Amino acid sequence: MNSQAYSSRGLNPGQAYQELVVRSRELIQINAISNLASWDQQVYMPEGGSASRADMVSYTTKLYHQKLTEPHFGELLKIGANGQWMPDEAANLREWKREYERAIKLPAEFVARAAALYSEAFDVWQKAKRENNYYLFAPKLEQVIRTVREEAHYLGGTQNPYDALLDKYEEGLTSVQCDEFFTKVKATLIPMLQKLQTAKNKPSADLFKGKSFDIETQRIFSKQVSASLGFDYSAGRLDVSEHPFTNRIDTGDTRITTAFLAQDPMHALFSTVHETGHGIYEQGLLDKYKGTPMGNAVSLSIHECQSRFYENNLARSRPFWEYWFPKFKEIFAKETEGIGFEEFFRFVNRVEPSFVRIMADEFTYHMHIIIRFEIERDLINGVLDVGRLPEIWRQKYKEYLGLYVMDDDKGVLQDVHWSWGSFGYFPVYSFGSAYAAQLEAAMRRDIPSLDESIKRGELSVPLVWLREHVHQLGSLYTPAELVKHATGKPFDSSDFIKYLNDKFTLIYG
Amino acid sequence: MNSQAYSSRGLNPGQAYQELVVRSRELIQINAISNLASWDQQVYMPEGGSASRADMVSYTTKLYHQKLTEPHFGELLKIGANGQWMPDEAANLREWKREYERAIKLPAEFVARAAALYSEAFDVWQKAKRENNYYLFAPKLEQVIRTVREEAHYLGGTQNPYDALLDKYEEGLTSVQCDEFFTKVKATLIPMLQKLQTAKNKPSADLFKGKSFDIETQRIFSKQVSASLGFDYSAGRLDVSEHPFTNRIDTGDTRITTAFLAQDPMHALFSTVHETGHGIYEQGLLDKYKGTPMGNAVSLSIHECQSRFYENNLARSRPFWEYWFPKFKEIFAKETEGIGFEEFFRFVNRVEPSFVRIMADEFTYHMHIIIRFEIERDLINGVLDVGRLPEIWRQKYKEYLGLYVMDDDKGVLQDVHWSWGSFGYFPVYSFGSAYAAQLEAAMRRDIPSLDESIKRGELSVPLVWLREHVHQLGSLYTPAELVKHATGKPFDSSDFIKYLNDKFTLIYG
Repeated sequence: MNSQAYSSRGLNPGQAYQELVVRSRELIQINAISNLASWDQQVYMPEGGSASRADMVSYTTKLYHQKLTEPHFGELLKIGANGQWMPDEAANLREWKREYERAIKLPAEFVARAAALYSEAFDVWQKAKRENNYYLFAPKLEQVIRTVREEAHYLGGTQNPYDALLDKYEEGLTSVQCDEFFTKVKATLIPMLQKLQTAKNKPSADLFKGKSFDIETQRIFSKQVSASLGFDYSAGRLDVSEHPFTNRIDTGDTRITTAFLAQDPMHALFSTVHETGHGIYEQGLLDKYKGTPMGNAVSLSIHECQSRFYENNLARSRPFWEYWFPKFKEIFAKETEGIGFEEFFRFVNRVEPSFVRIMADEFTYHMHIIIRFEIERDLINGVLDVGRLPEIWRQKYKEYLGLYVMDDDKGVLQDVHWSWGSFGYFPVYSFGSAYAAQLEAAMRRDIPSLDESIKRGELSVPLVWLREHVHQLGSLYTPAELVKHATGKPFDSSDFIKYLNDKFTLIYG
Repeated sequence: MNSQAYSSRGLNPGQAYQELVVRSRELIQINAISNLASWDQQVYMPEGGSASRADMVSYTTKLYHQKLTEPHFGELLKIGANGQWMPDEAANLREWKREYERAIKLPAEFVARAAALYSEAFDVWQKAKRENNYYLFAPKLEQVIRTVREEAHYLGGTQNPYDALLDKYEEGLTSVQCDEFFTKVKATLIPMLQKLQTAKNKPSADLFKGKSFDIETQRIFSKQVSASLGFDYSAGRLDVSEHPFTNRIDTGDTRITTAFLAQDPMHALFSTVHETGHGIYEQGLLDKYKGTPMGNAVSLSIHECQSRFYENNLARSRPFWEYWFPKFKEIFAKETEGIGFEEFFRFVNRVEPSFVRIMADEFTYHMHIIIRFEIERDLINGVLDVGRLPEIWRQKYKEYLGLYVMDDDKGVLQDVHWSWGSFGYFPVYSFGSAYAAQLEAAMRRDIPSLDESIKRGELSVPLVWLREHVHQLGSLYTPAELVKHATGKPFDSSDFIKYLNDKFTLIYG
């Protein structure tokens, strides 16, 4: 609190490190407040609280930025750079430096101007989406893109501005890596999708048609599954929100949400399992690193890798349902009468091109991401004009997914990201899935009996592996280093492509 | 945020006032964070979050104290004192000055030492209560009393330290006023209680014996009643917590809680109505004063006056139940079969001496307060020794309520207040009830048809009166001035004594 009282003169690296820890704890304390404010806003806040909650969020954001950018922070980092450090200390210094330098690169005038523009653009985007009118949003989007390019310039991405933006969300990720990865994935998925769509024996999409599943029973089942996956309810909660999310308020308090549909119990279940993957990661970080980067998840894509591993690789697998399907049939005996295992298993793994990303299946999901990646990269690099966006969007949905997009509200206007100035974010979703496949392959080499354990409902087996190879490491490694360390080889897309190939060939015959 | 950048040199009173408003908004913003942290802790936080939540509360408390005690705040107040002010501005200056001066009177060393002691004493009190062993707590309590006396000394209560403590909770309240008030109340209640207890036709206490009332139906009924009293659910919530409370997070977001018992639907109902009284007060403060004392409730006793007016004067009245009893019978038709209006009305107004304050009825409640007042006054003034506390407690419960206290956990150890260093707090509860009676008398003079309106379920009638005479005034008047302004005469206990006399004479015949 009395940060003004510190003086960097005469400090040795060890003392500087200790002061950085104190400052880091304060920053993470302020974050904890923002986390609580945000969780509450999405889960329980009455509508009347909107304006004052915006004030709270703005206050904590400013307080955080003020504390982070105090020049003394930079001086401490300089002194710290001369020390000899253990790997965990070095990781903390790496992350503090990364965050501090990014923050001081952006002029305060720019930060305020950008925040005001994004907030305005978000409102215009909402209206445009509601009215299904892209051209209402287009002029604002153009301003947003100019501002995001300005940000990229400050962050040092003068050669390839999109790289600077990717690095914001995923340390070290580049356009070249994205190009290479998405080119390979696209080359596999497009022809494969055509085969799946013309397969003779396609899974049913109507398994639950006309049925209704009691919400409270669904809730109990979702909690049972997530607890069995390892989510600790004495240090967490499950609530309901429009868009499911995970929020670790602070050590010992990680909250996940889901959304229930009476007509489809799998909606809430897979949502819950997805968030459980995020939640388990947060709960697996080590308390002893509380308040420092070592006690935080390393990146968005590693986070997404956990949630997708749990949702797709684990909870859409055959051994998983060999254990859980009888339990599901038991609690919903009447509603599932006459539904057999194979039929159900194929149902939860069906592939169906659709217009909306967040409703997409495991397979076509990545086509949605590829489209966004190609478009936003070209927008930021100035080779695509905002005016042609709906046309390009339609063209790509036709080419990659075989869909004719009619309405922009279910097309180019569907996602909030661009209105908020988030460019370079979408790729992390697909990298998350790809990392999950590479992790799974490594896990299977380490644990040959993995499927046997899952069949018996022993879901702590994958958890223990992830605890050791991912969760407990916090920010020790950069995301790329972490994947290499956990799997024994640098990341490449081969395990992911093999995973999709093997899985859907088997399911579609 | 950049409070360091201000300079008081050359400011005129108007400019100083504007800067005080900015600082006041920041203080109230920090309070909003504390409010949310506290609400969440009592309602939804998982147990694993305790330690990190304690850190959050401690952080915001320190941040608040740091911002409040910046010397520049005092300089601005000095400049402001030379201005010509409208009544609302003068009220803000009065409250800022009061809070600032109190804060700077306490040395930082003392604040930290006292907080550590009270936290420790709270733990020991919990243990002592659990083990029903007062002598475990006694040495800590002795330390607490010494520390509270030290606080009173800093606050300027050298002549009568208890006065300085009373003033902390209720601006301007003195021992002399308390003595006078409680002497009169006691002189009425003790003989009257003896009469009620020997009355021939006492209300039944077993009306619901053996019945069970569905919690969800109770919740719906409680919400319906509170909404009809004027609680705005678009700017508020009703949740469940062990001890019911009200918390206005910030403008537009006021939350109340209740606790449900299957065997007694009146428990949750009266709790909800009590908190509704608090909540309505908070919701009735004017948004235009957001972030300044004028936008805050003036005092604890005026707050308690609202909750007790709603709970006792209104929701335990005959006209109230003439409207609501048929509705209650309708939703709990089976459970209330054969129960008539008179029987029910007398049941909710029955008087029964009991050991525990928070379970006490409207009448005997004040005996609990008088006992605590007499004891804490004597402890603080050094005329009663901690060692004799259980003995004195037993003696007074015997004398005032006719009860033989056997166990200290339901006796002298029942309340948390003293362990936390809260001495001088208990009287506000009784003053709240007494103010409510004086307000009711004034309201009846202004609205002769009040009972008719209440009978028709038009509960906005008392609300509109309270909005005008209490809620919208915020901190314009001191508590004593407010009572005088709203009722046309200075506070005295006569309306309260008359209210109790009339009501219970009628009920007990």
